[in-house]
Amino acid sequence: MSGSRQPRVVIIGCGFGGLEAARALRSADVAITLVDRTNHHLFQPLLYQVATAGLSAPAIAAPVRHLFRTQPNVTTLLAEVVAVDPVARTVRLAGGATLVYDHLIVAAGATHSYFGHDAWAPFAPGLKTLADAFEIRRRLLYAFEAAEQETDAAARAAWLTFVVIGGGPTGVEMAGTMAEIARHTLRGEFRHIDPAAAQILLLEGGERVLPAMPPRLSASARRQLEQLGVQVRTGTRVTAIDAHRVEVQPAAGAPPQRIASRCVLWAAGVQGSPLGRQLAHAAGAEVDRAGRLVVEPDLSLPGHPEITVIGDLAAAQSHLPGHAPRPVPGVSPAAKQMGRSAAANLMRRLAGEPTIAFRYRDWGNLATIGRNSAVVDLWTPWRRVGFSGWFAWVFWLFAHIYFLIGFRNRLVVLIDWASAYWSKQRYARVVTGMAPGTTDD
Amino acid sequence: MSGSRQPRVVIIGCGFGGLEAARALRSADVAITLVDRTNHHLFQPLLYQVATAGLSAPAIAAPVRHLFRTQPNVTTLLAEVVAVDPVARTVRLAGGATLVYDHLIVAAGATHSYFGHDAWAPFAPGLKTLADAFEIRRRLLYAFEAAEQETDAAARAAWLTFVVIGGGPTGVEMAGTMAEIARHTLRGEFRHIDPAAAQILLLEGGERVLPAMPPRLSASARRQLEQLGVQVRTGTRVTAIDAHRVEVQPAAGAPPQRIASRCVLWAAGVQGSPLGRQLAHAAGAEVDRAGRLVVEPDLSLPGHPEITVIGDLAAAQSHLPGHAPRPVPGVSPAAKQMGRSAAANLMRRLAGEPTIAFRYRDWGNLATIGRNSAVVDLWTPWRRVGFSGWFAWVFWLFAHIYFLIGFRNRLVVLIDWASAYWSKQRYARVVTGMAPGTTDD
Repeated sequence: MSGSRQPRVVIIGCGFGGLEAARALRSADVAITLVDRTNHHLFQPLLYQVATAGLSAPAIAAPVRHLFRTQPNVTTLLAEVVAVDPVARTVRLAGGATLVYDHLIVAAGATHSYFGHDAWAPFAPGLKTLADAFEIRRRLLYAFEAAEQETDAAARAAWLTFVVIGGGPTGVEMAGTMAEIARHTLRGEFRHIDPAAAQILLLEGGERVLPAMPPRLSASARRQLEQLGVQVRTGTRVTAIDAHRVEVQPAAGAPPQRIASRCVLWAAGVQGSPLGRQLAHAAGAEVDRAGRLVVEPDLSLPGHPEITVIGDLAAAQSHLPGHAPRPVPGVSPAAKQMGRSAAANLMRRLAGEPTIAFRYRDWGNLATIGRNSAVVDLWTPWRRVGFSGWFAWVFWLFAHIYFLIGFRNRLVVLIDWASAYWSKQRYARVVTGMAPGTTDD
Repeated sequence: MSGSRQPRVVIIGCGFGGLEAARALRSADVAITLVDRTNHHLFQPLLYQVATAGLSAPAIAAPVRHLFRTQPNVTTLLAEVVAVDPVARTVRLAGGATLVYDHLIVAAGATHSYFGHDAWAPFAPGLKTLADAFEIRRRLLYAFEAAEQETDAAARAAWLTFVVIGGGPTGVEMAGTMAEIARHTLRGEFRHIDPAAAQILLLEGGERVLPAMPPRLSASARRQLEQLGVQVRTGTRVTAIDAHRVEVQPAAGAPPQRIASRCVLWAAGVQGSPLGRQLAHAAGAEVDRAGRLVVEPDLSLPGHPEITVIGDLAAAQSHLPGHAPRPVPGVSPAAKQMGRSAAANLMRRLAGEPTIAFRYRDWGNLATIGRNSAVVDLWTPWRRVGFSGWFAWVFWLFAHIYFLIGFRNRLVVLIDWASAYWSKQRYARVVTGMAPGTTDD
């Protein structure tokens, strides 16, 4: 490669957006450096399955290097980006090394937001990375083990009370799956407790779960959750969390209630990666309340056409001709589309052509709830179709398996799910160093 | 269960020995408590595959609780045993709880032995638990990532030098698999290094690898390793290890040599779990040089017929009539047979019958080396058969898959291996928080 003459493209982050951008530049005469702090691309829509012991990590994670082994213009770099210097056009890595870029695509994604209550984080982990998933799996499975050994009734009840905070897709999936684990997976395995007696609470501050869906489907999702044994509490705001309880405000003005629980999961909010704020500060750009970078219609950073921001870190608008701009949701199809748009606009700039405003093609939303239950809100070119129950679940299943990267993984996921479906068992009920104060060797 | 009248049996450890003992007591009128500090039974013969990213952890680990859900006389307890009191007949758990027993089966297994050089442990991890396997996987894969980013030639060479210490089955398997990863798995994935240029060294203090095998098969194993690109150095004693190098004594009296390496694995020695020494001290029993409890012919602790020691923690002898007692090797078939013997003798004691001395039925040894290469030393009732190469590899493959616990896992392992075989890829190349100073969220 005549690396010296080729434009240097740096892509930060190998989620759906970064991956798609790098792939779309496959035939471009550029030298791409793809930087990620992990060695794998994560299929995040199925991360909750790893957290709930349904899938092993490798089933939803593909080594980035391997994905690009046949694309010679991509160099994969395992490193953490600590800062971008938009003036010097360099990216600084943990350890001190720097990368020089001519074009920068920032796809650093999002992390959890505790809405100013970061002290809650240790008591209510969120679900963004494999490490998060393992920690949640550990807490989830350990709670039943601790309950089995607990002799005090109240303490045991607290171990058997699981609270999921946030009624979006992740919260709904987590709560529904946890109910199945308690009702089905663990049946007959304990001698002192009945896992089916576990309480699973789903707390949502708004008026309904899955707010992105039409009200009819939200109501259906709630019914399906309740059939699985999940207690759904909408209009309930969390006011405090510690190692032993969650304090909630059931309604405005109502007295706070305390829910004794030893396993609390956070699915309530996300915010842009800290890199967004650093870049905004350095480039004189703007972040919104969720810490996402406000971008131009073509997803470039204002005043910096050589920097494009995509995925969950971008506060982007969709510009359909004849319509007012609509905010783009933080979902993987949007990230992929932004990745393709970033690559296309980059090639236009290289060819001296004007860039094109981003248009988000919304196919709708899916959310699974549990065995045989899901909701689908499909936006076809003709009309918007909503359905739920078994057919929606099968639709969800195959949509996700189809989009899983790499046939190999798809096959494994299919087998894991088929066996889980028939046996009501879960494959990955394995934790290392499980009990507090336990060592593994 | 009328637990009060039933004899209370406590089994410490859920490896091959403890698992087999609990299962063999399936129809006994006893109340069994099975204590383990992890929630899974580990199929240790395939642990090296998890360490080398060939298998995911759930493929070789089965939740203990689930294995005994249909055996009502077993209560599974996730806890770490800190001490046994053979006088009070109690087992003390981390956290302070105690278990009272009438009969105790100690199957606490073994851990690594650095022969008095415990300071080497952080630089040369051993392979006993899933946590060990993940750490080794992380070091192995990260070494190539670091080499890709390293500009200094000598430092890069150190990252690409892998040292396996110990020429037993584990060391041979690790070295052979690492050679395959370097030669095949990573081909074409790096831009600045050639993974195939990596050096894999297997150091053995004795005169040949696989000393438990006949010399002919040791020689064949060595040839097969060298064909895979492993440098085998026998008669080589390790005198020092730190973060950057291994110091070896090539021969008695020869000057020490230094091998610059950033990834060193320990497969040289094991010793009985620390619980063995505690129990020996408390019961006035004896441990051998390897920290294993010296037991009676029926595997009971001298002076304590109610305590039986099995598996890697027992310095046991096999008593075949007409033969001198032979020491029992620390292999999984031996642990299983000791588990069955412990259960049978326990039932004899309950029936007031005399116990029977343990007899080890040795079926021989297998060791795999890599793709299409293995050695098999089979002891048939008629004659001893040794063979190597492709057929030995297939024999090893099916023997291991057959003994994997649970059809479900077997199927997944088969698929993983089939796809690995054809694609020369490895399924589980996934690590969390890989780069030093990297966080996952």
